[in-house]
Amino acid sequence: MIIVLKNGTTKQEAENFSNILTEKYGVQVNAWHGAMSTVLGLLGDTHKVDIESIGAYELVESVKRVQEPYKKVNRAFHPNNTVIELENGIKIGDGSLNIIAGPCSVESEAQIIQVAKAVKESGATLLRGGAFKPRTSPYAFQGLHADGIELLLKAKKETGLPIVTEIMSAEHIDLFKDVDIIQVGARNMQNFELLKSLGKLDKPILLKRGLANTIEETLMSAEYIMSEGNEKVILCERGIRTFETYTRNTLDVSAVAIFKKLSHLPVIVDPSHAAGIPWLVEPLSISSLGVGADALIIEVHNDPPHALSDGAQSLTPDRFDMIAKRIFAAKSALDSALK
Amino acid sequence: MIIVLKNGTTKQEAENFSNILTEKYGVQVNAWHGAMSTVLGLLGDTHKVDIESIGAYELVESVKRVQEPYKKVNRAFHPNNTVIELENGIKIGDGSLNIIAGPCSVESEAQIIQVAKAVKESGATLLRGGAFKPRTSPYAFQGLHADGIELLLKAKKETGLPIVTEIMSAEHIDLFKDVDIIQVGARNMQNFELLKSLGKLDKPILLKRGLANTIEETLMSAEYIMSEGNEKVILCERGIRTFETYTRNTLDVSAVAIFKKLSHLPVIVDPSHAAGIPWLVEPLSISSLGVGADALIIEVHNDPPHALSDGAQSLTPDRFDMIAKRIFAAKSALDSALK
Amino acid sequence: MIIVLKNGTTKQEAENFSNILTEKYGVQVNAWHGAMSTVLGLLGDTHKVDIESIGAYELVESVKRVQEPYKKVNRAFHPNNTVIELENGIKIGDGSLNIIAGPCSVESEAQIIQVAKAVKESGATLLRGGAFKPRTSPYAFQGLHADGIELLLKAKKETGLPIVTEIMSAEHIDLFKDVDIIQVGARNMQNFELLKSLGKLDKPILLKRGLANTIEETLMSAEYIMSEGNEKVILCERGIRTFETYTRNTLDVSAVAIFKKLSHLPVIVDPSHAAGIPWLVEPLSISSLGVGADALIIEVHNDPPHALSDGAQSLTPDRFDMIAKRIFAAKSALDSALK
Amino acid sequence: MIIVLKNGTTKQEAENFSNILTEKYGVQVNAWHGAMSTVLGLLGDTHKVDIESIGAYELVESVKRVQEPYKKVNRAFHPNNTVIELENGIKIGDGSLNIIAGPCSVESEAQIIQVAKAVKESGATLLRGGAFKPRTSPYAFQGLHADGIELLLKAKKETGLPIVTEIMSAEHIDLFKDVDIIQVGARNMQNFELLKSLGKLDKPILLKRGLANTIEETLMSAEYIMSEGNEKVILCERGIRTFETYTRNTLDVSAVAIFKKLSHLPVIVDPSHAAGIPWLVEPLSISSLGVGADALIIEVHNDPPHALSDGAQSLTPDRFDMIAKRIFAAKSALDSALK
Repeated sequence: MIIVLKNGTTKQEAENFSNILTEKYGVQVNAWHGAMSTVLGLLGDTHKVDIESIGAYELVESVKRVQEPYKKVNRAFHPNNTVIELENGIKIGDGSLNIIAGPCSVESEAQIIQVAKAVKESGATLLRGGAFKPRTSPYAFQGLHADGIELLLKAKKETGLPIVTEIMSAEHIDLFKDVDIIQVGARNMQNFELLKSLGKLDKPILLKRGLANTIEETLMSAEYIMSEGNEKVILCERGIRTFETYTRNTLDVSAVAIFKKLSHLPVIVDPSHAAGIPWLVEPLSISSLGVGADALIIEVHNDPPHALSDGAQSLTPDRFDMIAKRIFAAKSALDSALK
Repeated sequence: MIIVLKNGTTKQEAENFSNILTEKYGVQVNAWHGAMSTVLGLLGDTHKVDIESIGAYELVESVKRVQEPYKKVNRAFHPNNTVIELENGIKIGDGSLNIIAGPCSVESEAQIIQVAKAVKESGATLLRGGAFKPRTSPYAFQGLHADGIELLLKAKKETGLPIVTEIMSAEHIDLFKDVDIIQVGARNMQNFELLKSLGKLDKPILLKRGLANTIEETLMSAEYIMSEGNEKVILCERGIRTFETYTRNTLDVSAVAIFKKLSHLPVIVDPSHAAGIPWLVEPLSISSLGVGADALIIEVHNDPPHALSDGAQSLTPDRFDMIAKRIFAAKSALDSALK
Repeated sequence: MIIVLKNGTTKQEAENFSNILTEKYGVQVNAWHGAMSTVLGLLGDTHKVDIESIGAYELVESVKRVQEPYKKVNRAFHPNNTVIELENGIKIGDGSLNIIAGPCSVESEAQIIQVAKAVKESGATLLRGGAFKPRTSPYAFQGLHADGIELLLKAKKETGLPIVTEIMSAEHIDLFKDVDIIQVGARNMQNFELLKSLGKLDKPILLKRGLANTIEETLMSAEYIMSEGNEKVILCERGIRTFETYTRNTLDVSAVAIFKKLSHLPVIVDPSHAAGIPWLVEPLSISSLGVGADALIIEVHNDPPHALSDGAQSLTPDRFDMIAKRIFAAKSALDSALK
Repeated sequence: MIIVLKNGTTKQEAENFSNILTEKYGVQVNAWHGAMSTVLGLLGDTHKVDIESIGAYELVESVKRVQEPYKKVNRAFHPNNTVIELENGIKIGDGSLNIIAGPCSVESEAQIIQVAKAVKESGATLLRGGAFKPRTSPYAFQGLHADGIELLLKAKKETGLPIVTEIMSAEHIDLFKDVDIIQVGARNMQNFELLKSLGKLDKPILLKRGLANTIEETLMSAEYIMSEGNEKVILCERGIRTFETYTRNTLDVSAVAIFKKLSHLPVIVDPSHAAGIPWLVEPLSISSLGVGADALIIEVHNDPPHALSDGAQSLTPDRFDMIAKRIFAAKSALDSALK
């Protein structure tokens, strides 16, 4: 960490301040006195040094980190890719491509089983479906809750597909004990109490990037989960909020490549929610392969217009079948061409 | 609600679709057939009609709301200002100005009592202090939790100032039973499970706008609380995330005036967190008076550099005293000039 | 165009207003009277109707376009792809992939010829190089101007590669008479006087999307050029400004697919400027293939650290050679897999 | 300037690099070798050192400026406020408040003279009106050009109000010789060729912040003008582009206070364009006083609904009269209360 002191700071003031830092954080401090300003360099383990607290000292002009503030997530300390293995042998993060498909909301047994069978047929390897639904309006359908999870488990039994579903509160954790992957939605990415609770489980967590969260903040939220002991974290890019209004959000493909470089965690992409436009699912999926996505999470609904939530971006099973074939073909082609 | 159908939709298709809408949502549908497109108008109570679900129909080009999607929050249905009264007679929303002041985190009994006395002396009418702290890093100080609330209550007993403090999970609600105003932080503005739990209380809720949430989404989150029965909601503008990097966030003063127009709820401004720069607290506070802020929430710390969190934007009691005097003077002056 | 009138508007007022619209814009107006509001639908050619002027009428609640405001650019009126042919037979927009490569700034004859030869060897089909450089600071290197264009033309003579270079003012148009493609930079995307001047030429214009311009605004700027008679416009996605700070800008791959759908113009991607990070050029290039990019524009410099501008995102010829091979391999693979 | 070198850089490499920097930029370089990284500090005049060029060196991890990159604009080198004096004795930047009012577009002699008289009556001290109009659509009204300027000059003769009008291309400079203040619009804020041309004049330039330009970039554009010799620059905050859609743009009041702190130039606010909503003009104007605005630029039209451009945000003279009175009253009140 580098601290630039204000113009006019005396050597004595700089020295006193260095002593405070050493005492408070156990770091070594080197000073470098320039003509216009004095610069301090902190040595040692600075990841617990609070950058804002440092900035509060009157004599501090600005502060700059040199080390990343995350450790468990950091590829520097864990060079190999983390691979998440599920009970049926599926691996996420090993270089293969998984497609997680299913409806936005679980609505009925018939619906979820029909969709599950269809997406499995088309090559999907995991089933998604919402039982707890975060909705902007209190008057919109909020999901079937415990019943929704029951239906997902029935669909799992029927098809063998592991299931992914979203949690909205730590109070519901018991309901998720048979869920294969627990999803944390974009709106809860910085619900730190929830993250800490999930960090105590031994179960994969799919962590969606928040609508307006930086790459670093996303990695810090993963660090929350990992620092509690659960190292099975999967990152998910799902579009960020920008000024553009044609798409619901702006898919940030660069973030996928950067997550893969800075961390060792698997990274998946949600092209359905990013754009909110069904015809964009195919091009955005193929685009995501180019930046190294380990999996795609795609909304598929047997009857989009009657879907109780988020119908606008979901596909029919027929259309999904065509698209999934093309995505897998693109994956194989790129793997051969780029190996 | 107005629905534009795709170019090429037949009259028969439009009619079938209208029948579906009538059946599903109990609304009347009027069709208007243009040369290039057909437009449907929905009559009746459309606030439960799911705009995304409508958009999913193949024949729909686009959908536009005419009515606002919120009801309880809406000034149209509740023309008078909501005024929140606290036990010591303080009113928020009646045209007066309240200043809520205190440290980012409660750190010790000595600290919170000293700050409470100082800010009361300077004219603050409520005390704020964090017991549960949402921090980006799991390694940063997370607050004193229940002990922090105890210390706040001691400071309240000592000074008579009602207290405002942040909740991070519905599981902690019992700890907040003697808190005067419960704050929902920006990161939890769309933690809908938490909002629903708070909606069951009979206690004022200070709802901070999310970093990247629109004005409408903020009002919808207030609607979540109110739709459960708790009508004591206070909105708070605290800066939004933009491309600008000089300030931590960009204070959106327009939002304050718009919240006041669209809703009947009191609106407060947090100039400390918006900018993250102590010298901006005064100008942003006075600026907020110009758009009708009912209260300001300002961080004050007895010893900023040693603050365990967010020290960078907090003020010493001495500096706060000067600033508070100027803010109250500006308030009186504006009230006289503009009455 | 659909106009929602304010609650409380009388039938007579609505009728008077309809008459004004008919008279002013020559459109037909249909009225539909609901319980809460009256809606007007405008028929006929509404692309010249000024949406803001309509919104200024006291009785107007809101306005919504049904037709796109662009015509010449619109795929609806020009279903086939526009293909730009250059003198040496290169085609942009015909389904093939072109790579436009070269240094950010032209610095010397030796430099530009060396880079031109190298990139041609690696498969690039056009040469780029800046002679007029838009720089944030007046103290930064501003380009060699006319001399820079001379050097590009020498490199073209030497290698046969057509050249692409940026114009910053209509006053310089004469200097660009032998340039193959004139580039309009992101900062000048809404320099409408410049666009109108370029619209009078018979020469391809590469129009970069502005840092904070929407997809629709970009298409409207292309419309400016085309409405003056020059139909040879190439759109370029180069990243938009968002809150993320890890990358210089956020590459919006969705925009590429959307430009291809809404318009018939060729679309290229600039992965170098979007991210500002050399190692991201390869993944972002391959990602761009997935959304249908017709060409890539990549910065290559013989000596990045000594580059006089924008060195941070450019590649050495050796690295470019490796990357170009992989990009072309990916293009062939995807073309075979997805045909 | 501080340069952090990559982990693993040897002392010899750091030394070689330091020598290159000294040779290239004439700066002194101090090295500080930490356990994990080496940090270089550059001494001397670094404002011409190109931060991107430094970042291009393989061994560089990151670069951080300590000094601001602007000089002429910088309050550090020019502590007193710049005050712009106009021929009729009006001063901008001396602590008084000026209101610049008038229509978006000049449409006819009758219109501009009528508006000029009305706004003068209400206390406006300058007249604004667009002759060259930057419009998103080529089909929208583009202004009366030279004729528009003639009409403004007639209105000036009639009322004595100095005039402010926008320039869109350096080619038109001659037409502006009798204009009192030349405005550079938000879309041209980084039209550097135009800025350089205006820098050669001896006439005040009103520079509007770009839609998506940072505070620092705005100051750098002012530096472009000043570095050519014209020191009469007025900065204008007019709203930035964010994710919020209720307002056209988000007025960034913090920027006003920051411009005043970092530079010595007068700062004005455009509440009309920022929000695009007439009823917000008053609260945003008063809000702007709180952050130190030297002037306000407000759109006033004798007949908003028939305005040929931007009618949505303009006011009638009657409404302006009421608002102007309240703004001046607020200004006096705040001046007394805060002196």
